[in-house]
Amino acid sequence: MATTDISKSSPPLKDELDIVIPTIRNLDFLEMWRPFFQPYHLIIVQDGDPSKTIKVPEGFDYELYNRNDINKILGPKASCISFKDSACRCFGYMVSKKKYIFTIDDDCFVAKDPTGKEINALEQHIKNLLTPSTPFFFNTLYDPYREGADFVRGYPFSLREGAPTAVSHGLWLNIPDYDAPTQLVKPRERNTRFVDAVMTIPKGTLFPMCGMNLAFDRELIGPAMYFGLMGDGQPIGRYDDMWAGWCTKVICDHLGLGIKTGLPYIWHSKASNPFVNLKKEYKGIYWQEELIPFFQSATLSKDANTVQKCYLELSKQVKAKLGKVDDYFNKLADAMVTWIEAWDEMNPSAASSSGVPSGSAK
Amino acid sequence: MATTDISKSSPPLKDELDIVIPTIRNLDFLEMWRPFFQPYHLIIVQDGDPSKTIKVPEGFDYELYNRNDINKILGPKASCISFKDSACRCFGYMVSKKKYIFTIDDDCFVAKDPTGKEINALEQHIKNLLTPSTPFFFNTLYDPYREGADFVRGYPFSLREGAPTAVSHGLWLNIPDYDAPTQLVKPRERNTRFVDAVMTIPKGTLFPMCGMNLAFDRELIGPAMYFGLMGDGQPIGRYDDMWAGWCTKVICDHLGLGIKTGLPYIWHSKASNPFVNLKKEYKGIYWQEELIPFFQSATLSKDANTVQKCYLELSKQVKAKLGKVDDYFNKLADAMVTWIEAWDEMNPSAASSSGVPSGSAK
Repeated sequence: MATTDISKSSPPLKDELDIVIPTIRNLDFLEMWRPFFQPYHLIIVQDGDPSKTIKVPEGFDYELYNRNDINKILGPKASCISFKDSACRCFGYMVSKKKYIFTIDDDCFVAKDPTGKEINALEQHIKNLLTPSTPFFFNTLYDPYREGADFVRGYPFSLREGAPTAVSHGLWLNIPDYDAPTQLVKPRERNTRFVDAVMTIPKGTLFPMCGMNLAFDRELIGPAMYFGLMGDGQPIGRYDDMWAGWCTKVICDHLGLGIKTGLPYIWHSKASNPFVNLKKEYKGIYWQEELIPFFQSATLSKDANTVQKCYLELSKQVKAKLGKVDDYFNKLADAMVTWIEAWDEMNPSAASSSGVPSGSAK
Repeated sequence: MATTDISKSSPPLKDELDIVIPTIRNLDFLEMWRPFFQPYHLIIVQDGDPSKTIKVPEGFDYELYNRNDINKILGPKASCISFKDSACRCFGYMVSKKKYIFTIDDDCFVAKDPTGKEINALEQHIKNLLTPSTPFFFNTLYDPYREGADFVRGYPFSLREGAPTAVSHGLWLNIPDYDAPTQLVKPRERNTRFVDAVMTIPKGTLFPMCGMNLAFDRELIGPAMYFGLMGDGQPIGRYDDMWAGWCTKVICDHLGLGIKTGLPYIWHSKASNPFVNLKKEYKGIYWQEELIPFFQSATLSKDANTVQKCYLELSKQVKAKLGKVDDYFNKLADAMVTWIEAWDEMNPSAASSSGVPSGSAK
């Protein structure tokens, strides 16, 4: 029987997916990813000093944006893009013209499965995105659309079509994604457990979305993937992906979209400095206790039938309810609006979805 | 460093756990479980013809109840215990005097992990039950209380104590727990994927609870583990564990208790006949489409602060909302009340929790 070996035939979604990488250094890490990434287009967002030259290994097809480029392209709206923080990566989501995005950190390498085989993370993300999710009922044998699995007895038949998958959240072997206090308490803990599962985060449940190894469908959820105001001039860091994840989950739940987590693993090579992280995180750790109940109880109106409209509604609620926690959230709420305006400017065909009159975006 | 090897020291919870086995045949399957089960007390519930003698391998400590025993012990209330169906196992939960129950089917054998080591399923269930659950927020590295794992960045600190674990739902290698239509469509599908994870089913999410390989804390949730009216004289079968699971999940969510699923695996040896199963299931498959929305929207009052009170409230809602789906649910709702009355009679110290005046149970 002739079966198609996806890795040897044309790479899946080659012309429909961009790989977004935020970085402050030369991208030598791409050498290890060459067999998997070279067919794809890269969008590199240079974080920090724009006068520095970032070297990209030969043979990769890429575009690179530094801070000067971002300022030139977005004008005053560039204020919504973080500076000196990997949160700047979301600029890459905005300027992409593709349907799918995969984003990865430059300290992430190719992991091996328990048989020793190198894991094509991108291929697994694509599988996750191209098969439905099951947010409305839990399947105990995990992803029912995977080879060798199915829905178990007792799973309602009416729900077996699932929901479109908007996000695929991959995991990390070696250095786990811990906060600074946990890093400090368990400096030597390494993630060695390969869990061979993909699952849907159920509707109504929040999760901590990490931006290290993440793929999503830009058309379904792109405008919600705003990584907030972090880094230079901001009171917190390391909550960029969390913020995006909480907003995204609330909006996916509202719009009936699914988010998967689990496979693929990447090899996370280097733990960041826990003392530096603690400084970045401590307000976030504190505020988070207010943020979670806020997102858990957030509801969107029936009129919010596009991601943009959902996001603008959410920004109003952020201002109304979190503004009193700290003035930072008023600024963030404004930046959320600016982000949507900038998104629509960069993506004019989808702009009508936002409900923002196109004139107001100028 | 001296570490305690739990498998060589005294078996965990030896005097606090009963193993409940429903059966219609000789219990030869216990031979394979001898190293793991022999220290524990067994409660065998004989399903079907009470004149038949069930042989139990030498050396096991057990009590055995057949239908005559059940009728003698419960009198007219025995009507709530199914006949000619493994749903009768819940009688064993009721007569146990222990804090924990592990129940297993007699066609389930010891599975091996990927290294070839035999899995002590009971030991893993006990670990699951003795560590908290995390129903209020999803942890992407699965059970944070497991060796080598923790809460990831972005997990609120206020939620890291977790919730008491009421139920541990184990899985099956080899024959997956499929419904009859899926069995018919995929007769040769075998579950070969060992997923090395334990996770909490999030609050607000229903799941299909299978009774094949299941453990729970009787004190926390016992009275909700009623396996309904199935088998002889009833219009459906194979929904006993599902019914118990849906009721249990709604009550656990209400009371702030957790349910875990995943490890341990058992080896499920024999697929039941899909044609027979289809006959048992077909009404359930149909009714299920009404049952799921019912359980998804079921809410319990603040006064329902014990499992018994929750269960009695739920029985009223079953009668009010599902009685019109089929008269069977009126009978089932009555049986749910009888079950609680019988439970309280068998467990007088906990009876005050039900709110049913003790006189009314006679």
